Amino acid sequence: MLMFVELLSAPADDTAEDNTIKVCSLPDNVINEINSYEETVNRIVNTATSGQFKDFTWNELRKFVDKFGSRFEGTQNLENSIDYMLQNLRNHSLENVHGEPAMVPHWVRGSESASLILPREKDIALLGLGFSVGTPEDGITAEAIVVKSFDELKQRAEEIPGKIVVFNQEFESYRKTVTYRSGGAREAAKLGAVAALIRSITPVSLYTPHTGYMFYAENVKKIPAACITVEDAELLYRLQQEGEELKINLKMEAQLLPEVESRNVVAELAGDKQSEKIVIVSGHIDSWDVGQGAMDDGGGAFISWSSIVLLKQLDLRPKRTIRAILWTAEEMGAFGAKQYIKSPDAEKRNLQFVMESDIGTFKPLGLEVSGNDQVMCIVQRVLSLLKPLGNLKVKKGIEGDDIEDWLKMGVPGASLWNQNDKYFWYHHTKADTMLVLDPSSLDSGTALFAAVSYVLADISIDLPQEIPHK
Amino acid sequence: MLMFVELLSAPADDTAEDNTIKVCSLPDNVINEINSYEETVNRIVNTATSGQFKDFTWNELRKFVDKFGSRFEGTQNLENSIDYMLQNLRNHSLENVHGEPAMVPHWVRGSESASLILPREKDIALLGLGFSVGTPEDGITAEAIVVKSFDELKQRAEEIPGKIVVFNQEFESYRKTVTYRSGGAREAAKLGAVAALIRSITPVSLYTPHTGYMFYAENVKKIPAACITVEDAELLYRLQQEGEELKINLKMEAQLLPEVESRNVVAELAGDKQSEKIVIVSGHIDSWDVGQGAMDDGGGAFISWSSIVLLKQLDLRPKRTIRAILWTAEEMGAFGAKQYIKSPDAEKRNLQFVMESDIGTFKPLGLEVSGNDQVMCIVQRVLSLLKPLGNLKVKKGIEGDDIEDWLKMGVPGASLWNQNDKYFWYHHTKADTMLVLDPSSLDSGTALFAAVSYVLADISIDLPQEIPHK
Repeated sequence: MLMFVELLSAPADDTAEDNTIKVCSLPDNVINEINSYEETVNRIVNTATSGQFKDFTWNELRKFVDKFGSRFEGTQNLENSIDYMLQNLRNHSLENVHGEPAMVPHWVRGSESASLILPREKDIALLGLGFSVGTPEDGITAEAIVVKSFDELKQRAEEIPGKIVVFNQEFESYRKTVTYRSGGAREAAKLGAVAALIRSITPVSLYTPHTGYMFYAENVKKIPAACITVEDAELLYRLQQEGEELKINLKMEAQLLPEVESRNVVAELAGDKQSEKIVIVSGHIDSWDVGQGAMDDGGGAFISWSSIVLLKQLDLRPKRTIRAILWTAEEMGAFGAKQYIKSPDAEKRNLQFVMESDIGTFKPLGLEVSGNDQVMCIVQRVLSLLKPLGNLKVKKGIEGDDIEDWLKMGVPGASLWNQNDKYFWYHHTKADTMLVLDPSSLDSGTALFAAVSYVLADISIDLPQEIPHK
Repeated sequence: MLMFVELLSAPADDTAEDNTIKVCSLPDNVINEINSYEETVNRIVNTATSGQFKDFTWNELRKFVDKFGSRFEGTQNLENSIDYMLQNLRNHSLENVHGEPAMVPHWVRGSESASLILPREKDIALLGLGFSVGTPEDGITAEAIVVKSFDELKQRAEEIPGKIVVFNQEFESYRKTVTYRSGGAREAAKLGAVAALIRSITPVSLYTPHTGYMFYAENVKKIPAACITVEDAELLYRLQQEGEELKINLKMEAQLLPEVESRNVVAELAGDKQSEKIVIVSGHIDSWDVGQGAMDDGGGAFISWSSIVLLKQLDLRPKRTIRAILWTAEEMGAFGAKQYIKSPDAEKRNLQFVMESDIGTFKPLGLEVSGNDQVMCIVQRVLSLLKPLGNLKVKKGIEGDDIEDWLKMGVPGASLWNQNDKYFWYHHTKADTMLVLDPSSLDSGTALFAAVSYVLADISIDLPQEIPHK
């Protein structure tokens, strides 16, 4: 997961209470129709959480990420993992299983290192940022200057030329603080910096560098950019405060190669009445090139396709089609989704509801929903059928990336809202492994996606589409 | 901190409540005498926590660890840091400041790496263990076998010869689980293993390897030993469960060089009546060769000497001498302390009370005390004067290392008991930096050590010595 989309007035990282639905007035016939699914929903939940399907999602994900490890765009390993999933989805008797081609970036990290030279020698752990240029072979050796904010950068503009700028910004929230990762190099380069080292975007560190992508700007020199640990950013800041001159050597082999073809993975449970109408459940199959991409976004991708395997095994075939999509190349900027959404298959008029999970598959709290009040209330009513999973709520305001373009067009949709307090501890690090996930939360996520997608695919009314307010 | 010493019946890692002192019956004159220090103790606490001394310990420690980084036995950097401290203690007008020579091990890590070769290629992060031998230059390449316990190792004895044994033991408590780090290689070698990789001893990991020392046994082949991350230990275990053959390459340049001379750092506030009698406050100045050694044991060492600087600045000179000792070479086995304790200066009959801090300097909870009931009750009474620091308690049973030999001889002593729930997150890792510590907890620790050492150095009665029950 990379970006946060603000489609409704309420910010996505506000406290839950403020953004949940307080009052709903659905027509009685709609309420009654939704309530009529209660027994079906119970079967779905029971089978996923304590029946034969228990631990299915965790076990499938374990096999997948242990076999392939990280799955970065541009790599043969990602394509091999896509081949494996196409076969695996066919093995589970899903329908219309195929890959949809998409061109994706091919950024290569290469070897990379940084060393403090003055006031004393010390290795600096780092992870180069996606799209960053590399350094000359011997690296860049320069004086370093540490700033706490973009404001301080501007205040010290005269000191910047020729320097390596170290951003030691505090972590406020991912959405606020990630602007340093995405734009730090650009802002530093405007003032003449030769490289940017950015404190990793995380509330917690065990000397843990995080990666992610960054942007350059036209007419601004492209300078190398990497994230360093919170510990080293703070050390450099303290040394500067002590009056020490800082000198750093940075070596990065990073380079951007020509685009390559990858595939979004598609699998369906075809509707038996209005199969041209679609509910989408989705997550991305690619991951950063560190860790296992088990959390980001193995969990989201796997609850998506597992949910339709579960429906199929329960012999539940809705009126509309449920389509699972495992997006490719989300990490470098939702390349798979952006191309898919322009394809004829993605015609918005046929879309009933689009779901994504890409901010963790910890214990579900409900859904973050984009849509008008009627959509919110229908989804809230459906969630109320899922009592065994807790008091699930609809929250207005969505954090999403792959489904963003649809939501902007007015297609109603949702993202899995979950107890993801620790999500950014692991995000884009070597620590994103199977240990972050627990089987029962994955079962609950699968049940939630299965139940909501089934009811919305089967219900008699089409959900209204409405361009959200900016 | 390395080892846990169990000197009283109650285990050191039981819950606090069970081991605190419930009933005391001190003579009235002793109670009255201790209570008479209340105003003095208040001055100590106020000056340390809100007066001119506020943040003194944190700032001194920051300057020290930022200047030197890690301070491993055998290195010139440790000796340079000792020179700095000798000068710094003199600058703060402490008395009898000097180094006491001690021979210390000189183990050198060198470069080290491990790679999974089968079933797929993957780097395995590791930290070699102190005293481990290295591998041949090309490393050791062998099939790996993963066990969850020493019992499983024995059950699978026939499979062990020629293998790299991976210990994937669960973390129970440091004291219980560290036996895998210290003895895993030895037990594996007895059965013919060629190397041992041990899951790091920690409850929490962000792909974080931990180091520490290990033991070989006579007549058992010395095989290389390193700790790997919890994440990789679990991955290897899962792959084995899946039926995969594991092959690993391990390269370590580790070697043990001849012993070198180091120094324990000594500084005093001389007593004005019975200066030959001593209260000791101590922590160790050396650290592992990763991180900054700010927590282990910069904090403990610095509250020790800061406490007597504080007393000196308050013009508080006790009857007996308070001696601060910054031990050398604790990390490889308390080499500095073991030699010091055999020296004439360390005569036990002159020792009133020996204090150590080496399990964190987080928010103080009280003292872990070794001594008879009278000692426990006197210390509890002294702690009751420190109300502004919270409801401080005496806990029976001590975790210590450097003062262990004295305690075994019957000298009463104590270790700082503190809110150290997260201690083993950082222990012996690159994440042991200044960020682990907060200024106000260090102020409280300094105040506690200053107040307790002052009262026990000044009080009219000598504390009884009694060999603890085994």
